[in-house]
Order: sequence, then structure tokens, then C-alpha cells
Amino acid sequence: MLDRIPTLEDIQDCAQRIQSIIHHTPVLTCGNLDEVSGAQIFFKCENFQKIGAFKMRGASSAGTLLNDEARQKGLATHSSGNHGQAVALTAKMLGVPAYIVMPENAPSVKKNAVKGYGAQVIECESTAAGRQNMLDKVVVNTGAHFISPYNDYGVIAGQATAVVELLEEVPGLEIMITPLGGGGLMAGAALACHYLQPSIEVIGGEPKNADDGYRSFRSGKIEPLATEVTIADGLRSPLGDKTFGIIKEYVNDVVTVTEEEIIHAMRLIWERMKLVIEPSCAVPFAVVLQQPERFKDKKIGIILTGGNVDLTRLPF
Amino acid sequence: MLDRIPTLEDIQDCAQRIQSIIHHTPVLTCGNLDEVSGAQIFFKCENFQKIGAFKMRGASSAGTLLNDEARQKGLATHSSGNHGQAVALTAKMLGVPAYIVMPENAPSVKKNAVKGYGAQVIECESTAAGRQNMLDKVVVNTGAHFISPYNDYGVIAGQATAVVELLEEVPGLEIMITPLGGGGLMAGAALACHYLQPSIEVIGGEPKNADDGYRSFRSGKIEPLATEVTIADGLRSPLGDKTFGIIKEYVNDVVTVTEEEIIHAMRLIWERMKLVIEPSCAVPFAVVLQQPERFKDKKIGIILTGGNVDLTRLPF
Repeated sequence: MLDRIPTLEDIQDCAQRIQSIIHHTPVLTCGNLDEVSGAQIFFKCENFQKIGAFKMRGASSAGTLLNDEARQKGLATHSSGNHGQAVALTAKMLGVPAYIVMPENAPSVKKNAVKGYGAQVIECESTAAGRQNMLDKVVVNTGAHFISPYNDYGVIAGQATAVVELLEEVPGLEIMITPLGGGGLMAGAALACHYLQPSIEVIGGEPKNADDGYRSFRSGKIEPLATEVTIADGLRSPLGDKTFGIIKEYVNDVVTVTEEEIIHAMRLIWERMKLVIEPSCAVPFAVVLQQPERFKDKKIGIILTGGNVDLTRLPF
Repeated sequence: MLDRIPTLEDIQDCAQRIQSIIHHTPVLTCGNLDEVSGAQIFFKCENFQKIGAFKMRGASSAGTLLNDEARQKGLATHSSGNHGQAVALTAKMLGVPAYIVMPENAPSVKKNAVKGYGAQVIECESTAAGRQNMLDKVVVNTGAHFISPYNDYGVIAGQATAVVELLEEVPGLEIMITPLGGGGLMAGAALACHYLQPSIEVIGGEPKNADDGYRSFRSGKIEPLATEVTIADGLRSPLGDKTFGIIKEYVNDVVTVTEEEIIHAMRLIWERMKLVIEPSCAVPFAVVLQQPERFKDKKIGIILTGGNVDLTRLPF
């Protein structure tokens, strides 16, 4: 457990600790998308990360912070998405049990993905309360350590390592854009830039249909999540106190984009970059396309967060 | 024009000549696909190449072989696929005209892609004879230089550079697999391995539904293309005398795969590697999956040839 806002040293320690667990992902550019956007964009390909998403960094960071005795009891979380897979694979790599709480109506493909890593899937009612109750039960019964999908300083330090790698590989970035959901990556990115290159403008991209981050950033307190549907389902999480505390301090702006803008940006990345990315992942590029004047000729870093998408249900 | 089977020096000259025109594409690996296949595979990502396919190498190689006077008259070819785009972009980068002959019933998206590079599209009847007649007319009228999609030593030298880069980046490869269509890449790969690492087993992968290469390889003479349909439409070309002459000599084996095997391999690469590839491009990996005993623990190089696929018409 890390019980403070990660320092630069905490993030560097984390990078060391997870080095053998995660992939050092490549940074790709695309002349065609630079032309289309008028900017110069460096895409950090966390869709190539283990389990297909940056979440592997945060989960392995939190898991490796535990001492041997705590690890042996296992890792637990609630998630039917990338974080569940990340915790499951972290546990597998550490040789300890994993308990993943999922709504009973989650698609079996998601349950099977987690089971494929040797984790135990525990079904719960498909409500926030049902999920929390079941997770509490699991933690009490097993002694497993709960890893939050984002509201955990160890997780935030892990996500920050993606941005540190990007800053190291590409000197002179002027803007850094990440998607904003629960805020783990956003907070990690803000810290990494603050410590290593404070002149960078750090921007969060959010679906208009899940604009709680945008509203919170402006009001200065955590606003509730709207109930609207967005194709960027990975970003439908409320902020946490730990992530928002950092975001409030170190993020420069939050921009929202429409569903159509997300799908258009996603399609361009598929067609021109030949990369499979999930909708949430397209949000930062959608932000750039939305405001060509603002980003004209700027040197921009974007974290491509993940590529786990159902190929039989594409929006185009 | 190159009027002999490319020597190693010819290929190296070509690499120099096209260096500023093409991308040096990355080599990616995927732990998950290694597990699935039992082999150790290094994927050379020509789907990231300019115009989204390795064809850019061959076209730019042939184009840059011309002297200034010849260049000024322009480049011509017949192709509604990647080669047409490659010739169009080469001409654009050289600042000369391009004339691309296409069947009148070719999808407008393909015509527009070529027009987008500033080339002139000339429509023809949708038959082999109609195409040839129109091309001949264009060449006579304009004096443009015809660049064959594959049956040209300059083109073959260009395709060989992809394999040279892969051999330079990954030492110790034991097997090299490329798709086999008209044979340009296959011939280039065979030459590159022959010159630089002759111990490598060079294998062509072909759709069962377009197995003229397989039959030709076995009979020792160019066999006609069958008329069956394959999803790997990029491989529905007859061999040429120049490509087959090299293939007969330096390729070790040709393996055919079914439509189902191609689609399965394609889907795995999309899902696990997060790469958009076209069906033709999946054929070499389908070969590996078909014969697990043969390829077990082998260190294999595969050229991912291209990523130009209609996202609204996927086979899964």
C-alpha cells in the first residue's frame, strides 16, 4: 500500500518493481493523422500492453507493493473490464490467488477471460451495493487485498509509468492528453508531467455522456456520474477522492466529446494507423480533432489506453 | 529498370534509394500468439507501411530506378488494390504524374484513395484483355513507365528490403514465411534470405482457393490461376516469369490454407496483437497454426503485408 500522493521516487520505484511484469510499449506516429489533425501526435500504444490495456501497470504496481505475507492471501477486485483481467494476470504472475467480483449478467466472454488467467470469478447482483457487499465478503473470507481500479495511490503510480516512458522517449512534448474515467491514468499523467516536465499542458478527454469529470473539474468537488450511455464504456466510472485530489491540483483542462466524435476518431485510428483500439481509447484524439485551432502544430502525447473490443459489435 | 535477378548489391542500393520514401516499420512480437502457436514469431509490420502495405517498397523501388527524363513522363499501372495506391503515392512523392487503370466497376472508395494521391484514374472494362488494352493505350499516349505489381526485378528488389530489415533486426531466424500471390514479395524474401542467411527455410503461404503457386511450385512450371473466390483477394494473381524463376530456385516450400484457417488467424492477430491486417496478410500465421509440430519452438519471421480492409465488411 502506498499511503501518500506518489512522489517522483515512488513512481520510479514502481517502474522498477513492475519492469519484468509489464511490456515497455512502443510509441507510434502517423503522418496521415498528423495531416488530418494539423498537430504532431505521439501515440503511446498501451493497447499492446499485457491484457491489452494500461490497467496492467496499476494492478501490478499495487500487487507488488504488498509484502510476501499479504500477497499470499491473494488479490481481489470488482470489475468486468480491463482492471479485472489486470488483477487476475498480476496474481497469476505473482503466483497467488485472485478473486474477481463480477455482475452475474456480465458477458461470459469477460468471465472466461479472467478465468483464463486462473482467477476465481465471484458473481454478484448487478448493482453498486450488490457488488460492494460481495467484495466485502470475499475480502473478509479470504484475507485477499482489494485493489481499487483507480482510487489507490499504488495504482496511480503504476499508471504514471506509461507517461514517464512517453516523456523519456519523446522530448519536447507540449501537451499530454489522456481519457478521464475514474481518474487513475489522468492523475498518474498529471503527476508524471508535474515532476518531469511541468510546462506540459495536461488535458483530460471525456465523453459528453459521462461528463462527471468535466463538471467536477469545474465545480471543484466530485460530481455524480450521469446515467447516460456512452460507447466509451471504460470511462463510466465516478472519480475517487484520491484521483480527484491530484486532478484538481495538476490537470489543466478537461474537454468533452460527443459519441459521434469518439466513433469518428476511433475509425480514423483503425483505418489509418491499423491499430485496434477500444472506444474509450479514441477520446483524446477526438479532443484534438474537435479543436484544430487550439492544437495546431502542437507536439502532443496521447496514451492509447487499450484495445479490448468486441470485434463482432463495432460501431462502423 | 533492373534487367537481372537482383543481386545483394541491387537490393542494398534499392534500400538506400527508397529510404526517405518508405517507413522503416517495427517488428512486433506477441507472447499470447507464441503460446497459441508454440512457435516464436517476429512480425514485420508492413501494415504500418505508407499506403498501409509493403507494396510501397516495390513501387518506389521501380519508380526511383528511372532516370529524370523517364520519370517526368509519369508512372502507370493497372491495379485497384494496394499496388495502385503505391504507384500513385510514389509518383506524388517524385512530383510526376501517375495513371492508374482500374475496372469501371471498382468500388469508388478505391478510386478515391488513388485520386487522393493526385493520380489520374482511367477506367477500363472489367476483363484482363480490357485492362491490358487500356494500359497499353495509356503508355503509348503518355510515355509513362509501366510498373508491374510484381513481375519486375526492380519491384522484387524493393519488396526484398522488408525482409532485409527483419533479418537485421532479429538475428537467428530459422524460418521466413510470406504470403504468395503474384510472387513479388515471395521472390524478394527468397533472395534476401539466400544472400544474407541461406540456412533459413523460406515458405510461401497461399489460400487453397488460389493455389496456383502451390501447383506451380510442384510442377515446375507456371500453372493457371483457379477461378475460385478467396477472402485473401490480394493473393489472386497468377505468377510471373520473373517471380517464378526466383521462387522455383530459392523457395523451400509452399503451403496452402483454407478460408476458415485464414479468418481464424486474422481474428487472432486482431484480437491478441491489436493490429488491423487484411485477410491476405493472415495467411502465413495460418500456415504456422496449421502445422504445430513442424513449427514447434522455431524462430519464425512473418511479413505482415498490409492492413487495408473494409471495416464495414469484416468476416467476423
